[in-house]
Amino acid sequence: MTPRPADAAILAGLRVVELSAFVAAPLGGATLAALGADVIRVDGPGGGIDIDRWPLHNGRSLYWAGLNQGKRSVVIDTRTEVGRRQVAGLITAPGEGGGIVLTNLPVKGWTSYEELSKRRADLIMMVITGDRDGGTAVDYTVNAALGFPWLTGPEGLDGPVNHVLPAWDAMTGYLAALAILAAERHRRRHGEGQLVELSLSDVGLAVAGHLGLLGEAILEPEPRGRFGNEVYGTFGRDFETRDGRRVMVLALTARQWASLGEATGLTAEFAAVESRAAADFRKEADRWVHRRPLFEVLESWFARHDLADVRKAFDSHGVLWGPYQTVKQLVADDPRASTMNPMFSEIEHPGTGRFLTAGSPLRFGAAPALPPRPAPELGEHTDEVLREFGLLA
Amino acid sequence: MTPRPADAAILAGLRVVELSAFVAAPLGGATLAALGADVIRVDGPGGGIDIDRWPLHNGRSLYWAGLNQGKRSVVIDTRTEVGRRQVAGLITAPGEGGGIVLTNLPVKGWTSYEELSKRRADLIMMVITGDRDGGTAVDYTVNAALGFPWLTGPEGLDGPVNHVLPAWDAMTGYLAALAILAAERHRRRHGEGQLVELSLSDVGLAVAGHLGLLGEAILEPEPRGRFGNEVYGTFGRDFETRDGRRVMVLALTARQWASLGEATGLTAEFAAVESRAAADFRKEADRWVHRRPLFEVLESWFARHDLADVRKAFDSHGVLWGPYQTVKQLVADDPRASTMNPMFSEIEHPGTGRFLTAGSPLRFGAAPALPPRPAPELGEHTDEVLREFGLLA
Repeated sequence: MTPRPADAAILAGLRVVELSAFVAAPLGGATLAALGADVIRVDGPGGGIDIDRWPLHNGRSLYWAGLNQGKRSVVIDTRTEVGRRQVAGLITAPGEGGGIVLTNLPVKGWTSYEELSKRRADLIMMVITGDRDGGTAVDYTVNAALGFPWLTGPEGLDGPVNHVLPAWDAMTGYLAALAILAAERHRRRHGEGQLVELSLSDVGLAVAGHLGLLGEAILEPEPRGRFGNEVYGTFGRDFETRDGRRVMVLALTARQWASLGEATGLTAEFAAVESRAAADFRKEADRWVHRRPLFEVLESWFARHDLADVRKAFDSHGVLWGPYQTVKQLVADDPRASTMNPMFSEIEHPGTGRFLTAGSPLRFGAAPALPPRPAPELGEHTDEVLREFGLLA
Repeated sequence: MTPRPADAAILAGLRVVELSAFVAAPLGGATLAALGADVIRVDGPGGGIDIDRWPLHNGRSLYWAGLNQGKRSVVIDTRTEVGRRQVAGLITAPGEGGGIVLTNLPVKGWTSYEELSKRRADLIMMVITGDRDGGTAVDYTVNAALGFPWLTGPEGLDGPVNHVLPAWDAMTGYLAALAILAAERHRRRHGEGQLVELSLSDVGLAVAGHLGLLGEAILEPEPRGRFGNEVYGTFGRDFETRDGRRVMVLALTARQWASLGEATGLTAEFAAVESRAAADFRKEADRWVHRRPLFEVLESWFARHDLADVRKAFDSHGVLWGPYQTVKQLVADDPRASTMNPMFSEIEHPGTGRFLTAGSPLRFGAAPALPPRPAPELGEHTDEVLREFGLLA
């Protein structure tokens, strides 16, 4: 055990080679990079299949810039024998924190665990696939299979509603990063590397299980339907203010429920509903079951109040609520999305410009936070990295 | 370094005390438990605020059962001095893999890092909050602030659309689990514990940044709007089959685009659109820009084919697609959500019944998978745990 160098980030000493595209694996790599791991993304000439993905600015991909923050970029042509040797050499280069590869590209032949682990026996290889059997699946097909599009969206709508957030990708990326740390702990304790596998569809299925949705669909003859913006099983919904803004309001706890009554002055009206229904609104389930008359009372209250009044009343009473914002409104108005939030800095992204950029959301008391870094230019570190690992052709 | 015991799960030897409710922290704990950590959830008499959350079966919470899988449950009344001493003793009990606490409850006084670390200097404490400043925020208010509800849902709809999946909670839970492993790595290397902090809103903001949405909103005068079920910047959308089923179809790559033409026999019609538009449909951006006429061609093709025909044609040509399913259809029809998938077993959940349950989606080559375990009965392990750590009153 050694004393910690004062300036060492929490994942200092870890080195991950990333062969990737799209969201899950790049986000896993970016997550580790933001915590101080040396993450080296390897692409072929011209870049990966995701190099030009929308949204663009000045013709450059903001998507690529976001998902590859803080990495080093190496371009190697693996159609040549020399290139394949270089990539294999990089992945299996010696060093206590090295010998780790993260990929969501097809692995076979020279990129297989079997072949690469011949060059470094304690190799850790994290492979992300679509389906568990290696079949192709992406966030959008997994989401369609899981049932969420029939639960999301306005009540009475005819058809599924996809959510725009690639949530399964993001969760898979985070789990892959977690798995790398678990495997590295194992290697540190037992000297042994391993192949780790994770599929997007298994992540979706496991989460659907954790949330009780699989059990519900198996055990209940009539599982839940679609409830629009109402939060199933509790008190929560959107409302429109007099000035046409929308707010999300919840009462998950008895205290939050009491606050909502106090902030709106509707305690007596809520109690009247409670008494008529013979309900106990200190209970979450009762607030859900009898939500309709409560929503009516609140709708007419919101129709008489502007967002500014709502904010004042709700914040002073500790109501659980928040305004809906477009992304434009978020970056214009919300102090959490500004340099007032220490997670953010304005930094220059080569080719696209200077804009507000986040570092890791994780704050470690015993390790300094790394300031956010832009994505590299494609191939920016090719020479540097090949030289560093003695792999120049 | 010691050889690995053959039956040791990947996180064997790790012990985490969880003071939690709802999704993020319980999911973080369940994730570590599924990988073999000893996760001990501590609740007050009667259980936490989430003990009765919907969905229910036989009056018992399937939500609680899902989010607390594989943990031990201890009930201690922390309104008493003895109870507080027991919980603090449990959190700070000796042992190499112990001294770790995961919480999303307010920490202050005796539960603060300052106080607890007096009892164990190398304590690791992972604290999840709503907002970074400790303010209350939940998945639904964070999501409203981030802008996704204005991007999700049918084009032309007036109003925000919440997605039903508590995606920010899930990501936060996974990141918290990751952070515990990062802090434990640090402790193993440098002998030092620490406080780790993470807020739900920072997770949402960081992910919005990684996906390019913040940069887009800052740099572009007119950032993207709402595109219904179309996947922004690429070729992807839902279609309705002749027999009234919905399918999600994508072509993210040139190869997938070619497959779609071959599987539907529409290659020539696609080429005609391409030629009229002077586009190059091998490029993702061109498939997005000129998607409307392509959608029309496909709509009429799907209207002439049943799901069974679609499946046969698409699977044999490697099209990237999947059927929409309700959760009922998922558990009835999809082999991925059955015991054909080795992640799943049918297990008995005390009080609710026997149903299909997932273990960890992560597969470690050098450590056996743990079979899925149910959530404990509330307080099931109180005596066992207090005795084990010498904390009986």
